[in-house]
Amino acid sequence: MTDRPSTPLLDTVQTPDQLRALPKDRLRQFADELRAETISAVSVTGGHLGAGLGVVELTVALHYVFDTPRDRLVWDVGHQCYPHKIITGRRDRIRTLRMGGGLSGFTKRSESEYDPFGAAHSSTSISAALGFAVANKLAGAPGKAVAVIGDGAMSAGMAYEAMNNAEQAGNRLVVILNDNDMSIAPPVGGLSHYLARLVSSNKYLSVRHLAQRFARRLPQPLHNAARKAEEYARGMVTGGTLFEELGFYYVGPVDGHDVERLVDILENVRDADEGPMLVHVVTKKGKGYGPAEAAADKYHGVQKFDVVSGVQAKAPAGPPSYTSVFAKALVAEAQRDDRVVAITAAMPAGTGLDKFQAKFPDRTFDVGIAEQHAVTFAAGLAAQGYRPFAAIYSTFLQRAYDQVVHDVAIQNLPVRFAMDRAGLVGADGQTHAGSFDLAYLCTLPNFVVMAAADEAELVHMVHTMALHDSGPIAVRYPRGNGTGVPLPETPQKLEIGKGRIVREGKKVAILSLGTRLEEALKAAEALEGKGLSTTVADLRFAKPLDEALIRRLLTSHEVAVTVEEGAVGGFGAHVLTLASDAGLTDAGLKLRTMRLPDRFQDQDKPEKQYSEAGLDAEAIVDTVLKALRHNSASVVEGARA
Amino acid sequence: MTDRPSTPLLDTVQTPDQLRALPKDRLRQFADELRAETISAVSVTGGHLGAGLGVVELTVALHYVFDTPRDRLVWDVGHQCYPHKIITGRRDRIRTLRMGGGLSGFTKRSESEYDPFGAAHSSTSISAALGFAVANKLAGAPGKAVAVIGDGAMSAGMAYEAMNNAEQAGNRLVVILNDNDMSIAPPVGGLSHYLARLVSSNKYLSVRHLAQRFARRLPQPLHNAARKAEEYARGMVTGGTLFEELGFYYVGPVDGHDVERLVDILENVRDADEGPMLVHVVTKKGKGYGPAEAAADKYHGVQKFDVVSGVQAKAPAGPPSYTSVFAKALVAEAQRDDRVVAITAAMPAGTGLDKFQAKFPDRTFDVGIAEQHAVTFAAGLAAQGYRPFAAIYSTFLQRAYDQVVHDVAIQNLPVRFAMDRAGLVGADGQTHAGSFDLAYLCTLPNFVVMAAADEAELVHMVHTMALHDSGPIAVRYPRGNGTGVPLPETPQKLEIGKGRIVREGKKVAILSLGTRLEEALKAAEALEGKGLSTTVADLRFAKPLDEALIRRLLTSHEVAVTVEEGAVGGFGAHVLTLASDAGLTDAGLKLRTMRLPDRFQDQDKPEKQYSEAGLDAEAIVDTVLKALRHNSASVVEGARA
Repeated sequence: MTDRPSTPLLDTVQTPDQLRALPKDRLRQFADELRAETISAVSVTGGHLGAGLGVVELTVALHYVFDTPRDRLVWDVGHQCYPHKIITGRRDRIRTLRMGGGLSGFTKRSESEYDPFGAAHSSTSISAALGFAVANKLAGAPGKAVAVIGDGAMSAGMAYEAMNNAEQAGNRLVVILNDNDMSIAPPVGGLSHYLARLVSSNKYLSVRHLAQRFARRLPQPLHNAARKAEEYARGMVTGGTLFEELGFYYVGPVDGHDVERLVDILENVRDADEGPMLVHVVTKKGKGYGPAEAAADKYHGVQKFDVVSGVQAKAPAGPPSYTSVFAKALVAEAQRDDRVVAITAAMPAGTGLDKFQAKFPDRTFDVGIAEQHAVTFAAGLAAQGYRPFAAIYSTFLQRAYDQVVHDVAIQNLPVRFAMDRAGLVGADGQTHAGSFDLAYLCTLPNFVVMAAADEAELVHMVHTMALHDSGPIAVRYPRGNGTGVPLPETPQKLEIGKGRIVREGKKVAILSLGTRLEEALKAAEALEGKGLSTTVADLRFAKPLDEALIRRLLTSHEVAVTVEEGAVGGFGAHVLTLASDAGLTDAGLKLRTMRLPDRFQDQDKPEKQYSEAGLDAEAIVDTVLKALRHNSASVVEGARA
Repeated sequence: MTDRPSTPLLDTVQTPDQLRALPKDRLRQFADELRAETISAVSVTGGHLGAGLGVVELTVALHYVFDTPRDRLVWDVGHQCYPHKIITGRRDRIRTLRMGGGLSGFTKRSESEYDPFGAAHSSTSISAALGFAVANKLAGAPGKAVAVIGDGAMSAGMAYEAMNNAEQAGNRLVVILNDNDMSIAPPVGGLSHYLARLVSSNKYLSVRHLAQRFARRLPQPLHNAARKAEEYARGMVTGGTLFEELGFYYVGPVDGHDVERLVDILENVRDADEGPMLVHVVTKKGKGYGPAEAAADKYHGVQKFDVVSGVQAKAPAGPPSYTSVFAKALVAEAQRDDRVVAITAAMPAGTGLDKFQAKFPDRTFDVGIAEQHAVTFAAGLAAQGYRPFAAIYSTFLQRAYDQVVHDVAIQNLPVRFAMDRAGLVGADGQTHAGSFDLAYLCTLPNFVVMAAADEAELVHMVHTMALHDSGPIAVRYPRGNGTGVPLPETPQKLEIGKGRIVREGKKVAILSLGTRLEEALKAAEALEGKGLSTTVADLRFAKPLDEALIRRLLTSHEVAVTVEEGAVGGFGAHVLTLASDAGLTDAGLKLRTMRLPDRFQDQDKPEKQYSEAGLDAEAIVDTVLKALRHNSASVVEGARA
């Protein structure tokens, strides 16, 4: 535990109203204390540190200048919101961040009126803010909307779609481009080069310059070529045009760590009659904390750490993570086959592709936060004979669903999808859970959908994917460490649509898909202890299903349960459909499907989440026993009554 | 039937190789004949006319200059590809466009090697072309990739994501921006204003100018402020910077109907050493056919028509379309409640919102082809107390799936989704079928999902949605005309999660969701004729299910079938899950789920598609009879054997 820092000024402020009562010349001290408190809190909880430290002054300035919560402040992604939470009435719970029952690690509507729009996935803020701005315009109500979005998030098409529509908001919309040249990984693409040029060739905007620009602009039309030529000739502006062409009034770049100047500029922005404004603020991720500044990527998401040394608590040693096993397996495939290429959407480290990139830089494509492009780009590579692996978290693949359907499934192109973080994800909570991939992929013709039961299975599945050229194929695997099984020397090509029996029994059949297999085996032990001979199968494939195996298991056991780490409508629903199609329910079939509950689960420790979801060994045993005891006649009676 | 036009030159050309053998001065005649043939073909088949006519010269020039099919030509959306099909070996089948067994109305890989990437949804072409270009670069193989994309399609975020990644393709990628200031409806937003400014302030580029630009650029860095200032000062360039900032070399604007000049410029572009090129071509939708030029929107998708008069065949009079019933119902809601607002993604006519817009222009938001933004913008409006209806075709809502999950469902915001074109869609074929919405929405917590059984039900459902403030709610309804039932004077608020019995019987229960209800009733008649007393229920809600009704129906009838116009994993799967959860299968349950087949169906007449899908009355009767006859004991035996 770390000593709490001394924060005399911060201690006097519980809400932005109190902040706004401070004289401007106290804001620097206030920001320093807010930074110290943020570091102290995250040293206890772990979480996103660098992003929040980069926006301490911006957070203070925004709440100081804008009338929150009436003015709607929308943080993109939301992982930079810890300082915001501290000064919006949540300081007393800040050391419960990301814990069960504690504060969310992102903005969340149910937590505070100061969080008008929750986030966690990137690039939604401008659209949401535009909704707020237009609603106020329609209602004739006061109130502006401010979106704070990082330069990395700007690479997503959604942000561009919103910017393209921003004109209608008039001066009710302010977009703060928080340019730290780093989202999680360094950003890629034309936009980031463009921003770098803006920053390197422009001096930071002073208030005097800003005033001049406003004054000079007012009597002239927005796109007056003569004025532009003059500005170019003077070297005053080398850019900003991209945003201006989309209808914004561009202001910047602005030093994001000079809180007083930020306040001055934001006051001008707030009071301007211009159309939507884009303020280009330059910040440093991890600002003000040495270890974070020195290693912004490493300090993106941190464990608990020692404030003085910056040393993070080590996770207990254990089996390798699924991510690292995937990366190693893919490297091995690529060494065998030069048609294997890999695509990530701004998550090289998260997906493990940084290791692939180190070996095969020319065959690794980081497209930025751009899942839609990633998938169709992969489809183009596949159509030209390559074997692309698109490594995208289950929850983020949602953003490319139409591309998965329209460009991959309909054309039956062999794009390989590596869906990390499938199922529950612990501290990141509901927005990052990969709950829906089984439902949204298994409904699609042509798709092969696998789930790895352990890290050895994952190795086989990566190999199977590499060799599967007849259509799209996906594998899902969870966050966290494997089970510790030995990894195969030589991967096997699995037969498509064939499961395996892990343990043979007679009375109870557990049909497991994916990493709940361990719990299924524990449950089988417990059932065996009660005299119930139990079969456990690992189905491997959610699509196509192993029809022969499933028919055999359902008809030769007294009760069967399916177990999956996915929402309703997935594996279990497809097993039921198969059973019904085959008429297996006609004569009586005790089959239960165990799945995630039909609600979004809050963050918590994984074990607690599984227990809450009813997906641990105990719950499996319970479901089996209840089904065995269930007197079907009484149900019919009850329903008829 | 129209007389075939005289096309002596076109008759000599079956493939692009033969076209490339023509002298350049014959291309104008060739294009004229190609235009006449296109008009003649579409007059017989109906289909997309204006888009194809706008790119006749561009089609000729591209195939003349580039070495197709080695050079990969990717048409965005693909509805402008009829001239392309005529000159790439498919002229003999061009009068089968959009018919069962005929040519697709879009590009399609299985049809021709000249269609390297199929399309139908917008804005995928740059990503796919980039895939081809990068694959060739990796392989060290020759071959460029050319994407042809409309100005409307450029408003989609996906196009921007791809442009942001284009630099890596080097000079292997050429993007043709086909600027006709009109996608289906006039485009909206900052980008379109920007393009209009480019065109209005620049003279069409001559080859001499192009050469000068190339020459001047070569010795200088791309973003040399001095050079830009000079260009601005001379008034030579007022724009192009947006694309240049993203890493393209911008060429344009170019007159898209001067085929010889187009060829000259494209030859320069092809041979340039520059990085990725964006050629801004200005065309006129419907070019060269008076009735189409005069009414481009009307001629976007046409019926068969008389070539001389331009008069389209009238569809036989019938009940109003679901689209128009939806629009009228929404107008009525908006008249009662000024919080009702409507959002469309570039489909005001297709969704019927043009009628809403005529009454409530300030409450209608056409965001362009930008479904992602549309949904999160709607979520912002809902969070601020409005009652937004996002009217998006089922198939296009796929493009906003993550926004539906992350911004709407997780936050439980009352966004209303009107999903037109749910189910099979006839001539538009597999890419436009709305097959997956039941699966991808019913898996989400918090969602209410309805399907209208007829147009009167749709009116009630629109009313129910307007009043449903506790979370997201969606209604699906099909393409085409209603059933002719009388429309209610006063809409009712339906109880959430409650179905209705349409016809009472004793032995067979048909659980219908949506517009297959008519067929279910026909099937019931037929079954009754065989002495099988049949209940028909319209479940109305796919989520939440009417548990009491379903339990009663399943336990009080000898056999039950579910019927839905959706893919596996939808309504039927959820009914099975409910039955299994409740233990209803334990004692024996003859339940079958009827749904779309697990394959993508080609275009055809709707009746044929339904028959092929096994979703008509005959198939329902057949399924019921087979289930009744089914000897469940033998199944178990068989499986054990």
